[in-house]
Amino acid sequence: MSGMKTGFVVTFILGLSVILPAQTVAPTPQLYSSQTIQNMRSIMRSALASDYAYRQTAYLSNNIGPRLSGSPQAERAVEYVADEMRKLGLEVRLQKLSVPHWVRGDEKAELVEFPGMAAGTTQKVVVAALGGSIATPNDGMTGDVVVVNSFDELTALGREKVEGKIVLFNNKFDREMAASGFGGNAYGQAVAYRGGGAIAAARLGAIAVLVRSAGGSQNRLVHTGAMRYDPNVTRIPAGAVSFEDAEAIAYLAKMGRVRLRLLMTPQTLPNATSYNVIADLKGSELPDEVVIVSGHLDSWDLGTGALDDACGVAVSMQVPYLLNQLKLRPRRTIRVIAWMNEENGSAGGTAYGEEQAANVSKHFAAIESDLGASHPLGILFTGKSEALPFFAPITAVLREHGAGIAQLQPGGVGSDIGPLTQKGVPSFAPYFDTRTYFNYHHTAADTFDKIDPKQLAESGSVMAVLAYALANLEQPIPR
Amino acid sequence: MSGMKTGFVVTFILGLSVILPAQTVAPTPQLYSSQTIQNMRSIMRSALASDYAYRQTAYLSNNIGPRLSGSPQAERAVEYVADEMRKLGLEVRLQKLSVPHWVRGDEKAELVEFPGMAAGTTQKVVVAALGGSIATPNDGMTGDVVVVNSFDELTALGREKVEGKIVLFNNKFDREMAASGFGGNAYGQAVAYRGGGAIAAARLGAIAVLVRSAGGSQNRLVHTGAMRYDPNVTRIPAGAVSFEDAEAIAYLAKMGRVRLRLLMTPQTLPNATSYNVIADLKGSELPDEVVIVSGHLDSWDLGTGALDDACGVAVSMQVPYLLNQLKLRPRRTIRVIAWMNEENGSAGGTAYGEEQAANVSKHFAAIESDLGASHPLGILFTGKSEALPFFAPITAVLREHGAGIAQLQPGGVGSDIGPLTQKGVPSFAPYFDTRTYFNYHHTAADTFDKIDPKQLAESGSVMAVLAYALANLEQPIPR
Repeated sequence: MSGMKTGFVVTFILGLSVILPAQTVAPTPQLYSSQTIQNMRSIMRSALASDYAYRQTAYLSNNIGPRLSGSPQAERAVEYVADEMRKLGLEVRLQKLSVPHWVRGDEKAELVEFPGMAAGTTQKVVVAALGGSIATPNDGMTGDVVVVNSFDELTALGREKVEGKIVLFNNKFDREMAASGFGGNAYGQAVAYRGGGAIAAARLGAIAVLVRSAGGSQNRLVHTGAMRYDPNVTRIPAGAVSFEDAEAIAYLAKMGRVRLRLLMTPQTLPNATSYNVIADLKGSELPDEVVIVSGHLDSWDLGTGALDDACGVAVSMQVPYLLNQLKLRPRRTIRVIAWMNEENGSAGGTAYGEEQAANVSKHFAAIESDLGASHPLGILFTGKSEALPFFAPITAVLREHGAGIAQLQPGGVGSDIGPLTQKGVPSFAPYFDTRTYFNYHHTAADTFDKIDPKQLAESGSVMAVLAYALANLEQPIPR
Repeated sequence: MSGMKTGFVVTFILGLSVILPAQTVAPTPQLYSSQTIQNMRSIMRSALASDYAYRQTAYLSNNIGPRLSGSPQAERAVEYVADEMRKLGLEVRLQKLSVPHWVRGDEKAELVEFPGMAAGTTQKVVVAALGGSIATPNDGMTGDVVVVNSFDELTALGREKVEGKIVLFNNKFDREMAASGFGGNAYGQAVAYRGGGAIAAARLGAIAVLVRSAGGSQNRLVHTGAMRYDPNVTRIPAGAVSFEDAEAIAYLAKMGRVRLRLLMTPQTLPNATSYNVIADLKGSELPDEVVIVSGHLDSWDLGTGALDDACGVAVSMQVPYLLNQLKLRPRRTIRVIAWMNEENGSAGGTAYGEEQAANVSKHFAAIESDLGASHPLGILFTGKSEALPFFAPITAVLREHGAGIAQLQPGGVGSDIGPLTQKGVPSFAPYFDTRTYFNYHHTAADTFDKIDPKQLAESGSVMAVLAYALANLEQPIPR
């Protein structure tokens, strides 16, 4: 997940006010045939026994690697997923997109003056450019560091104390909140500085902005991600520093002058051509009605994007694989989409929404998995509260296997399906234990080893059972 | 701690066979006067309330930074500690040493060929040279990677399959063992490859060696540390890769050819002059008898050596500070030593042992803290088992404040005091909860923020109470 759309998602959470405990509604034959319910159970068992998604996650992460929009790896990933879907007999098309093409360069930061510094030394600062940042001059830039904990503190300092300096936003990621299961909320708070820090600092004349990493890692890891410029405000270089470096700089700045040398040489190249991979398993009775299962294929460039979001793509790819294995054909079309450019532009989700504008009513439902692959705790749903009873039989099945699907939770779903969600398409996301997700997300440590095969299989069972059930629902979902 | 002396320490553990529960021996007046016991309680309370050690750890870590032997920061740290001890009125001398001067250079590794690789890409490998490694050619070297899990697997492959290649020792750090409180044992197993990997690989004609990081981190962090060459075996460049990269390379190598490009440009400069800082708080009655309290001042260069071992130096410095505050003068001399070069040569400990060879009997006891600063679980003791009852009153006092001093444990103590320990000087170390220590140790994440002020104060109370009690013991310790 990119974290740039949190405000947008919240809007939709507000559209729902009722959580309906699943057990109050018994499975009703008019929603799902007994054959469908039986098939859901088979799919669930097959998903839990399958290593298909695990192998696909491994391939995308280890064999292809980081997949930032416009990179050769992103293009290789498009080809790879398309080929794999063709192998399963799906009808595959590539939806052409124009995507940003930002490329990380060299990056180095060091403290060149601070209280107590040994003569002839500097102190290393672990830094990474934020996605979309402009470069510093090729020989770097040096400035005094001003440390603030919030936008308010920056405003209070005023132009006089900020002009010509490097601003460090030292806003603390709420690790306790994240450890309590509210990682998304903690991230939402922290990411405001990553997104808007450059504009706020430049408005007061800063020459560069650094943000404390917007994640929970305390392992000298930098959290990258998208940032914004304002056409009316000077663009300044924007980077993230590790938790540790933010702490050390804040400590030193309280004692005296801290000067930092910053070199970052990213480039924004002309937009590149890329693609959403769209693969249809045609429905047997209502082929024009579509249930989307999806994840995003692009990733940030520091790690290999295993959690964000190779695993989401893999569990989507696994849906037709399992149905093929079981020789099941859904009533409606199940459309696997591997979205491109979720992280820094949302070109894929936007273009699909535009292309399908006249066809929204044919989108029966949309699912996106973009919160890792931990133990699933439920299903997030954005739509009309009257629709909730329609999904109770699904959670009843999923609960049987111990993946812990306790209830449907209203809440924000994936940003790629957002344009559909906004137009009323019932939208879903698996809802995970995210207590550790934000320790790795957008860092160099988002790598394949973070995937637990059992938990990924549980996540895959949610995607497959949910997608099949929706594709076989006997009635339309209220919308 | 360097981890290069584990074999040596084990020798001494074997010298003891009895753990004496503290409660079986009541405090006896002939060991400690009632005034001494009362003073021990005051020292304990003062230590728990003091932030002196915390501020010193901060200064050494944040204001001075990484302190590898021969570096300007190491020299600055020598001056700093000497000045701080003089401020406390101690008699300070610098013991001159000749120390290795190894300097890290550029380092970069990438996979340039592997199964599935997107054309025109490479895959980043996070690498750091091991301390003492020679450099690669300035334009790097490229070779096929051979992955082995053990020395035995390497031997089984033989020269034919190893010659001209880059060997990756993929020996797994036992995280479960470490999480169960046996971090030192887990480390001891893993570090064998870091120390001896280059020799074993070069014997079979390898052109370079990489080892999976010898620590518990799973955050794309590299664990550096000392390695060895054999004068009779070709020297080859030696680096560590992160857990994640070792996992990915092992995965890819099972699928086909993996070629890696390695660049590391460390330099071994001529030996540098450095110093042990030796500061005496003269004893009131037996000034010629010495109780050493110590930690090592040098650190590895990736982090700022807060846990390894600024905190050990700081809790040692705090002992005279607290006694001054309380206007207490020990009967014997308390000698604070900030050792130099523990990590890559042990020049400090060795030189002190040689200098004091004729004076060993005057060393009443020696304490070194070099396992971080977590919650103290007890005290390690190396010496005669008959001596154990002499220390029971100390643990009885420390138990009162809830720092969790449950028992004396026989076991290995610090490597700098090793030459004294070997000659029979009763030797001690605080024994900590080390469950997280090896996740940070020798990595870029060994930084000040890892120090918990409360736990550091607890550690400081162990050092101060133990040192004062030994300095005031009414009888000699059996040796």
